[in-house]
Order: sequence, then C-alpha cells, then structure tokens
Amino acid sequence: MNPLHDAHLRGFASDNYAGIHPEVLAALAAANTGHQVAYGEDVYTARLHEVLAERFGGPVEAFPVFNGTGANVTALQSMLPRWGAVIAAATAHINVDEQGAPERIGGMKLLTVPTDDGKLTPELIDREAWGWGDEHRAQPLVVSITQTTELGTLYTPDEIRAIADHAHGLGMRVHLDGARISNAAAALDLPLGAFTRDAGVDVVSLGGTKNGAMLAEAIVVLDPAAATGLTYLRKLNMQLASKMRFVSAQLLALFDGDLYLRNARHANAMAQRLRAGVETGLADGSIRGVSFTRETQANGVFAILPEGVADRLRESFRFYDWDESTGEVRWMCSFDTTEDDIDAFVAAIARETSR
Amino acid sequence: MNPLHDAHLRGFASDNYAGIHPEVLAALAAANTGHQVAYGEDVYTARLHEVLAERFGGPVEAFPVFNGTGANVTALQSMLPRWGAVIAAATAHINVDEQGAPERIGGMKLLTVPTDDGKLTPELIDREAWGWGDEHRAQPLVVSITQTTELGTLYTPDEIRAIADHAHGLGMRVHLDGARISNAAAALDLPLGAFTRDAGVDVVSLGGTKNGAMLAEAIVVLDPAAATGLTYLRKLNMQLASKMRFVSAQLLALFDGDLYLRNARHANAMAQRLRAGVETGLADGSIRGVSFTRETQANGVFAILPEGVADRLRESFRFYDWDESTGEVRWMCSFDTTEDDIDAFVAAIARETSR
Amino acid sequence: MNPLHDAHLRGFASDNYAGIHPEVLAALAAANTGHQVAYGEDVYTARLHEVLAERFGGPVEAFPVFNGTGANVTALQSMLPRWGAVIAAATAHINVDEQGAPERIGGMKLLTVPTDDGKLTPELIDREAWGWGDEHRAQPLVVSITQTTELGTLYTPDEIRAIADHAHGLGMRVHLDGARISNAAAALDLPLGAFTRDAGVDVVSLGGTKNGAMLAEAIVVLDPAAATGLTYLRKLNMQLASKMRFVSAQLLALFDGDLYLRNARHANAMAQRLRAGVETGLADGSIRGVSFTRETQANGVFAILPEGVADRLRESFRFYDWDESTGEVRWMCSFDTTEDDIDAFVAAIARETSR
Amino acid sequence: MNPLHDAHLRGFASDNYAGIHPEVLAALAAANTGHQVAYGEDVYTARLHEVLAERFGGPVEAFPVFNGTGANVTALQSMLPRWGAVIAAATAHINVDEQGAPERIGGMKLLTVPTDDGKLTPELIDREAWGWGDEHRAQPLVVSITQTTELGTLYTPDEIRAIADHAHGLGMRVHLDGARISNAAAALDLPLGAFTRDAGVDVVSLGGTKNGAMLAEAIVVLDPAAATGLTYLRKLNMQLASKMRFVSAQLLALFDGDLYLRNARHANAMAQRLRAGVETGLADGSIRGVSFTRETQANGVFAILPEGVADRLRESFRFYDWDESTGEVRWMCSFDTTEDDIDAFVAAIARETSR
Repeated sequence: MNPLHDAHLRGFASDNYAGIHPEVLAALAAANTGHQVAYGEDVYTARLHEVLAERFGGPVEAFPVFNGTGANVTALQSMLPRWGAVIAAATAHINVDEQGAPERIGGMKLLTVPTDDGKLTPELIDREAWGWGDEHRAQPLVVSITQTTELGTLYTPDEIRAIADHAHGLGMRVHLDGARISNAAAALDLPLGAFTRDAGVDVVSLGGTKNGAMLAEAIVVLDPAAATGLTYLRKLNMQLASKMRFVSAQLLALFDGDLYLRNARHANAMAQRLRAGVETGLADGSIRGVSFTRETQANGVFAILPEGVADRLRESFRFYDWDESTGEVRWMCSFDTTEDDIDAFVAAIARETSR
Repeated sequence: MNPLHDAHLRGFASDNYAGIHPEVLAALAAANTGHQVAYGEDVYTARLHEVLAERFGGPVEAFPVFNGTGANVTALQSMLPRWGAVIAAATAHINVDEQGAPERIGGMKLLTVPTDDGKLTPELIDREAWGWGDEHRAQPLVVSITQTTELGTLYTPDEIRAIADHAHGLGMRVHLDGARISNAAAALDLPLGAFTRDAGVDVVSLGGTKNGAMLAEAIVVLDPAAATGLTYLRKLNMQLASKMRFVSAQLLALFDGDLYLRNARHANAMAQRLRAGVETGLADGSIRGVSFTRETQANGVFAILPEGVADRLRESFRFYDWDESTGEVRWMCSFDTTEDDIDAFVAAIARETSR
Repeated sequence: MNPLHDAHLRGFASDNYAGIHPEVLAALAAANTGHQVAYGEDVYTARLHEVLAERFGGPVEAFPVFNGTGANVTALQSMLPRWGAVIAAATAHINVDEQGAPERIGGMKLLTVPTDDGKLTPELIDREAWGWGDEHRAQPLVVSITQTTELGTLYTPDEIRAIADHAHGLGMRVHLDGARISNAAAALDLPLGAFTRDAGVDVVSLGGTKNGAMLAEAIVVLDPAAATGLTYLRKLNMQLASKMRFVSAQLLALFDGDLYLRNARHANAMAQRLRAGVETGLADGSIRGVSFTRETQANGVFAILPEGVADRLRESFRFYDWDESTGEVRWMCSFDTTEDDIDAFVAAIARETSR
Repeated sequence: MNPLHDAHLRGFASDNYAGIHPEVLAALAAANTGHQVAYGEDVYTARLHEVLAERFGGPVEAFPVFNGTGANVTALQSMLPRWGAVIAAATAHINVDEQGAPERIGGMKLLTVPTDDGKLTPELIDREAWGWGDEHRAQPLVVSITQTTELGTLYTPDEIRAIADHAHGLGMRVHLDGARISNAAAALDLPLGAFTRDAGVDVVSLGGTKNGAMLAEAIVVLDPAAATGLTYLRKLNMQLASKMRFVSAQLLALFDGDLYLRNARHANAMAQRLRAGVETGLADGSIRGVSFTRETQANGVFAILPEGVADRLRESFRFYDWDESTGEVRWMCSFDTTEDDIDAFVAAIARETSR
C-alpha cells in the first residue's frame, strides 16, 4: 500500500497526531509470524511484566489495553465498589475528554475540584473527601491525578507523596493517569517508580500511544490490594486484545530500554524550545502580544495570542483552541517534532504578530 | 527488538493465534511518519469508506474499532433503545464469549435460542419474537446472526434474506457479526454485499483481526436508519483509537484489493484439507474413531476424538476443547496455516488414533 | 375521596390485582402521625429486624424496598462482582418479567436453563455451572430459585437443600425469590426459616405485595457474608423509601403475627378449591375438555381450555394467557378471593365448556 | 398493630420525617378492596391524568413512581440519548443526594455549576452549554432545575422562562425537579402550570412524599416530544408499582382538590414564622448570634448558630447540619408542623443563645 498522506507534514495539535516511532514498528515486525497464545498468555506480555517491574521498582500486575480511556475507566473501576466515587481535578481527562465513560461504563461518580494548574493538593481533595458511610453520597474512595497534567504541568514526587499520604490516611486509594507519564519521567529525570510506587501511587494508567506507540496503553497495578478483578473487567470493558503480543511488543519497544525517555525528552525539549523562542521574540520585540497561561513543564505550551493570529497561524500549522472563552491555545510537541518545525513556527508567530 | 518467540510454531487453537499478514504490516509502515488528524479524520479512514462502499455494494458508514466485542456491543447498542433486546443463537459469540459485555456495557438483553448448527431461522427467531409493547419484557428489536458461525457453518444468501425479511416484517433490524465474514465471502465466492446488504442485513461487525490484521475491526452501517449515535457510542464505549489511521490502514490492506479473500480462501482450504485428510484416513483405516460434529464450511473443523487422543495430540499441536461434556474439539485454520502443518497434523491424528 | 372503582369486582388475573388487607391498612394508620427518622432509622424498621429474625430462625439484615424487581436486582447485585452471572430457570421472573433490569441495572448476566416445572435441580444447574476463571465467560456465582415458582410449583426443603449444597460446593451463593414465599410456608406448613436458612439459602427477596400488602418487599440477608454494600446499593438502585416506616409497618402487619400465613393459606386453599371444582366437573361430565398443565401447589392454577372458552370466560372473569403458543392460561387466587368467587367461576367454566 | 413510636414528637430535620396526611390515608382506604388492573391500568391512575392535566394547564403524560430519585433519574433518562449530559446546579439533589444514581443507573453525565442560591441562570448554564458534536464531550441536552431549590429558594416564572428559552434556543430540554413543587405553587400563589408548562418546562418530577403523601411521586411529561420510552424505562428502572392504584390515589388526594396547596402553604408559613420569630428575637436581644444564610422562600430555613448551640438544641429538636465547614444548619417545616412547635423552638433558640 502506498502512503495516502503527506508524510512530511507535522503540526502542534496533539502528540497523537504523530505516527509510530520506527523502533516500535520494528518491534511489531519482530513479534510477528508464528503463533502465540491469544489474550495475553504470550511471551511478549510475560516479558512486559518483567520490564515494568524494573521500571516501577518492584513487582507489578500489568494489563495491556487499547487506549487511555479504556485504561483509566477500567483501572478506576477495579479500585471501586459499585457505590464508589473518584476525586479528580475538574480539568482531568476522565472528566472532560472521555464522553462520560467513567460514569456510564465504569459506573462511578466523579467528584471534581477546580484547580489553577490542573494539580490536586490535599486541601483541594478535602473539598470532596467527606461523607463516608452516608448512603446518599457516592463514596469517595479513589483520588485520581494526571502526570503530567492536561495543562502541561508536573507534580513533584513530594507533591504526589503528600496527596497519597493524605488519601491513604482517609481510606482512599490513588490512581495516576499516566497518558504522558514518560514526559514526567523525563522532566523530573527520575525513574517511573520514583514518583509512583515510591510516592504512594497504587495504580497507574501507563501511556504509550502519545509517546511513539501506535496504540498501546497498560493498567499497571503497583499495590495488588488496591485493584480487584482486572482480568474480568478488562474483558467486559472490551479492552482485551486477542493478538495481545502486538500491544505488549509496542510497550516493550518503549520501556525495555530507554526509548520512552528518549522520545519524551525530545518532546519536552521541543516545547521548551518553542517557549524560549517565543519569549526571546517577546524580549527583542519580534513577537508581540503573546502571553503564556501555564508553566511549560512537559511537552505542551499554552498561550494566548492577539486576536486573529491563531486562525492565520492555523493556515500552516494545525493546533487547537484550549479555552474559547479566553482565547487560550495549546501547542503540543511530540517525539517527531523537529527543531526546524519549532523554528518555523516561531518565525510564523513573529510574522503573524507583527503585521 | 529481537523476537522472543519461536516464529515457526503454529497450531490449530485459533485464527487469532496467528500474527499479522506481511501486507498488513507493510501498510502500517506506509501510513507512518508525518502527522494525521487523530480520532478518524485522517485520509486512511476516509479512504476506508470508499473501499468498504465498493465491497458492500453501496454507501456505508464505517467506524473502525479495536476488537470484535467492541464492534458487536457498540453496533448492537446503536440499533437499540435502552429497553431493547437481541435475538441470537445460544452459541453466538455475543452470548458465550463476551463476558456479558452486551448486557453490562451495551445494556441490552439477549434472547437466545438453541440451534443445531449455530444458525438462526425465521422459525427459531419466532420463539423469542413476541411481546412488543409489554413493558415487562425486554423488547426484541434486533436479530443478530454470525457469518460464518461460531460452529464453522455458513448461511447462504437466501437463508440470510429469509431471516432479514422475517425480522424486518416484525419491525426488527438485522445485525451480522462478521468476525469471519471474509471466510464466508470466500466460501460463497460472493462479494461481501451479496450476503449482507443485498440480503437485507442492516449493520455488520466487520472482522479483520482473525484474517490477518493485527487488531482491526469496524462497524459497517449499511442502512443508516438502523443505527443511531455511533460517533458518540464508539467513544463512550472506549473503542475510539486516537491514531486511527493505523486501524484503518490495516483494514485497507485487507479490503482495498483481495487480501481478505486470499487469506480467507487459504484458511478455508486448509480446513478442507484437514477434514479431507482425516476422512481419507478414516476410509483407509489409518485413522480410527474420529467423528465430525459439524459441517466444514469455512476455516474450522469440529470433531470428537477417541478418549485420550486430544491430550496426546496437544503435546505437539495446540487446540481447544469445544464442549467438554461431549469431548468435542475445535481445530481452526488461519491465513498462515501451511499444507505441511495440515499434513503433519493428519499424520499425528493417524498415529495417535492407531496406538 | 370516594372510590372510583367497583370494590366488589374480583378476578383471577393476578394476586397483585387485589388490594390491601385491612390489617395492613390499619398498620399504616397506627404508624402515622408524629415524626420518625427517614430512610430506615425508624422504630418500625428496627422492629422489623426482630420479627424477621424470628420468622427466619436467626439474625437477619433486612432492607425494605418498593417492589419485587427492586428486591431481586438489588439482592443479586449485592451477591455478585461486576463480572458475575446468575444461574436461573428460564421461566424465572428475573428472566422474563423484569425488562432486563437484572442485566441493565444490576449489570449481571443470566445463565438460564429450561425446566419442566420452573424448578432448578443440581443437574440443571450444572448445565451452566462451569467456566470459572475464564475471563471470556460471565462468572456463575449465584443460583437463584423462586419459591413458590412462577408456575405455581413448590420446592421441598430437601430440594432446596440439595441445590444449596451443590451451589455452595461450587463456590456459588443461593438467592431465593420469595415474591410468594408465604404461599410456600403455607403449603409446606413450615416456618420461613425451615426452607431458607435451614436449607442453605443465603439471601431472600421477601414478598409482601402479592400477599396483602400495598407495596412492600424486603431483601433479607441470612448469611451476611453473602451480600455486600446493600445500604449503598438500595439507594443507588432507587429503592430507598424516605418514609420507610410505612413500608416496614406493612411487613410488620404481615409477619409480626400470622397474617402472612392466613392470607397465603387462604389463597392456596382457593386455588385448590378451583382445581378440585374443575376436576369434579371433569369427572361428572359437567366440564369438558379442560386439562391442567402444572401441579397446583400454591395459589396458581394453570390449564388449557377448549378453543374459544378463555375469551368467553373473560367476559366476566379477568385472567391471563400464560403461553399463547399452547393456549395455556393462568388463574391466580389471592387473599381476598372468596369461595363464592371460585364457585361462580367453576360454574362458568362448566357453562362455557358445555355449549 | 399498636404504634411503636411517640406520635407527638416532631422536629425540623426534614419534611420526610413527617407522616401521611389524614386525607391521603383516607384515600388509600377508599381505593381499597376489590380488584384493579395492576401496573397502571386502573381507574385511579386514569383519573390522575385528568387531574394533572388540570393542574398543569393542558394534557400530560403521567408516570407514578416510588420516590424522588426514581422520578428524577427516569425522567432525565427519557430525555437523553446514551451520550447525553445534564446541566444542573452543583447543589442539585441529583448531584449530591442520589448516590450517583443519575450516572450509574441513568447513564448520564452531570455538568454542574456552582451557584450562590441553588438557582441556575442562562449565564451559569453557558458555562457548560458547549461542545455539541464533539464526540469526546458528553452532550449537554437537558437543563435541570429544582423548584423550590434545595436551599429553600424559589424561581419566579420569569426566571424559569429565561432558562427555558435559553435552553431551547440551544437545542436543550428543561427538566424541573419538583420534589417541593407544591411549596413553590404556594409561595408564588400560582397554578402549577404557570411556572412549568407556561414557562417552557418540558418534564417535571412531581413530588408528593414531602408534602403529605406516604410514598408517591410522578414523572409528568408536559411536552411529549421531550421524553421517549417512559413506559419501558419506568419498569426497567424498577419504579413500576404493581398495585399502582395506591400510588395514584395518594397523588389524587393531594392534587384533586387543594390539599397540595393547603399542606404547602402551611409548611411555608411555619418556616416564615420560624424566621420571623428568630429575627424578632435578634431585634429585641432575646436571641443572639444567629445569622441567616439563605432567603426563606419556602419551607426551609438556613442559619448559622453560635458554636455549641446546634448540639444543645438537638437534645430536644432534631435537625441537620447543612454545611459542616461553615456551621450552617437547616430547619425544615412540614405539613404537620404546628405553631406551638415553632414557638417552642424559637424559645429554645433564645434560651440556648443567651446562656
């Protein structure tokens, strides 16, 4: 089959606009031919457990799934009774980008809290951490945080530890949506275990797709007492791949070695380059009227542009509005973003803000 | 990454023990690099609509998803109100192999009917086709058939037409679980449209995975009046791939051309070779005590073996018990089954039944 | 308010066509005026626990609810994980009369078995009691029986004991749908505990409505290890009465004393009188062509009438077809059925079958 | 049965601590004896349609149900596709007091907005009224308001009209949770239709229980195009009473005549008396340190007491904390609250705040 698309076109819309990293594609080929037991009893999935145990600093139960929504909903469901609720930031992906699947499929209630930067704190958690034993109230039993957050911000290990200690002290468990967990590892320059297991996180949604996989996520259980029935829940949530070796092989390509870090470091660095480029432009006057709305701690840059600029930029570079009411836009970098991409974009910003 | 498995080992356990057909793998590579809009607004998914319109003989709405359970549950849900029920054979995959996902996730009731051969008929449908308007009864509004069936049998276009006419006459819609639809096209030597759209089927679960894809199925709506809200339902059922181009590219590799037919014809032929080999052995006395329980119309052979034979065969060839109470076993052939595989297996059957 | 209906008209359609027994109505009045804590922390609900502990021969947890479907679905849900299934007779109310609520609301799969008389046996249970540990199969973890059954038949304590021993031996729990449990107690002339707790039943849906209450059922947990979270599940299943004292007071009227037995004995006796009357007529030739399809062990009589007779009878006496395909009809007696009602009906049957 | 409780004890905890108004109890007796068709085909339910058509100023479809949560969840579900969402005040009963039943049973997402007084406005609605067509976002298709609100406040007809016009203009429907709708009619001195149908409300949850019924609510559909499948949904949500005549008879006792108004006016007046009594005490110095947190527009009074006072008052008068973080308490009056109750309570407040 010949390509149907222009393989040279890239933008800043999302890290899931990018394709498959060549090493991941090679891993699919390497895992191919011959028969392997379906539904996870294959050697690639077995190996994945070993690799993730290394990455997370201790034994894990890992459940490869198809996508992030599937990982989040299934993970949270395994941590909750039918009357359970999840405390999360109002900006959490589970709250705003999953079509209500946590509620509709997972059967959970979300108790959400507004935040400034997409990050929960013990104090913010306390706004919804009450009412245990009251049959009228969905019971708050899990706190879910996102690392790195949907706003491109980053929890320190200490911040996560404070949340986990607080949650555990109240009888709640901690889930970490790690769709961009590799970007956090890269930004913190720490092993995955250092800000998950070591910080008290119980269950992780491990992301692969946004960091160079084709389609691969996993539920990683760090404390087996925190999750029940994942074998069954994954199947009934329609997240069980028959040819699972190919999902596991993608995750192996990322995590058995340092590809996850290389990809994430690169994406983060490109976001830094973008921010620095614009800031330099603002300082030297070549760029005008752009302001940043969030810290740039991972691979996303959030900004407000002068009126009309976003639409003109989008004639050449695809990216999304983040908040139409404020005019905030989001620029995401990915493993395949190049320095030239950034430089061309910064130049375009200069051009379009100087007209 | 080096292979972790023995790439020369194959068995008869399932067509999803097989890997990825090389042309499908090549298609993933061809669709790679550069950015494409996520979530289905890519050129591969657009092209898939054209290709499937050709294959199904008229315009379609196609929704690529991850797996067969996801396709079935989401398709059926889109065809039903919240109080709907599905009439299906008791042996249907939706009834016996999906962990209750149709009920639990789809929220539907299954009204199942025992059959001899996995095939419904208008008469069998009538056993459950009643009670419309009675608020106490889940309302039978969809008939679901599987082609080829879970028992390796095949509906003729006339049989499907009779079912569809009957169902439509009663105000019900028709869904076809086509996890092995290509094997049916190959066995019937007919285009996909001839026994679906032309026979009155409204919505199809189109299978790719069991026929050489890595992980690719699609809901194909033939009558747009039969399905509602699939865009939303796919997302909320956690079946929406972000990098959808790679799911669509797999389906293109199969269906934009004749790979789907080549693979299916081969798998079917291998099943015929297996059956013929055993029958020849039975005729010439080299094989003893094997009986067949189903017609071999596609890529599965169902048999009862003399006691102890199954376990001895499984020391070298993996396959599943189908019905432990009767001793029935299932042998599945796939796109990568070789003539040598079959011949070696027949020889082993001869050896083990002659001891 | 004046009556809007003819308070002298009675038929044989259902025991829930009847009204409220006067002692139940008096109990509502007695529980009225003044304030009581809502949602079950009232003295009537507290007293109900004591009374049911007596009736069931040991401590119970009792959860008053609104109706039988609510009791069944909530009880079963409390006994199952999200991946659980219930083995039941195909004729069970949960399968045929609850609009799929067990599946849709309870999230469970029903594994149903055809029976001759509405009664399960260990052998029948075994048809679906398999597949534990297989993630593709809904896990059979509860057996549900109905006493007396939907076909007017009755389990002996030994039969229930055999089922419970078998189920428990396989790691399954036992639920008893007791919408007509009082009719069973009356027919067996045994305390409720003798064929529930003493026979190994874990959880009971205790019926009041069909036996003279206005609207009162309860989930009665005999083994607290068998059910989890009922406090929360009752609320989330929308079965928590705010003014619960009035639900409990109805159940007290029935079970704190012998009204439950008096009502049930009477209804059973009326069914026996009906059957005997028709049998006498058949013997003496005054009635022709009527055959009975089920044993008459409680308050329902099932019969097949000569063609046209049912419709003519229904001009004066309301009753339902049970199976339109066979012409079977059902005649239900209730606490308020009179001997004159029966005698008039038998006379009508004689008249209409002799034309 | 003799009363088990002190029929002279009343408090301010909730209007559902009260019992049954004598006229409602009499209506149960009047509807008793004789047989009536079960499940709603009785003359009382038929009459209820006529009565509610009068009350709501035009034809209605009415579905009696058991409780308010059942009414709300079933009503909202009937107004939404599976991917729908409801915009509501964060304080709405559906959000904070229904154990997640709207999400878990109804399968809907709630999009909640903080308010000052429990009341939505077009501007507040706009915070969540966006994203139609985006498959990632639960689709906002219904606005739900509560009248009178959970904070004892009241919408004017104009305020409701503004909300309904705004919602309709955006393609959304309007639901009104009328658990205390009679208190609104009394406070506004307007017919029910004047601030529902005439103001653009599409579907109402009509409350009876909090206003003198034993256990009776109804879903009232004012615009039949706004709700689908309620006949089936009521049954599958386990809200279908077999002996429905007795639920309908309660509603008739309230609404066929002016009992609903008499009860509500009385409860409202008692709340006014309570507020006035405390305000007088504050003015003359006999009461100290009490402040009011909400307007008293219906039958609830919200106040903050000096530290320790609430607990001392509760030794004699039961009432609830409303917001433990601020010390706010709620005092509810009901149809059976007496002037003496109020005066004794005001005296107690004076006594306890003056120590």
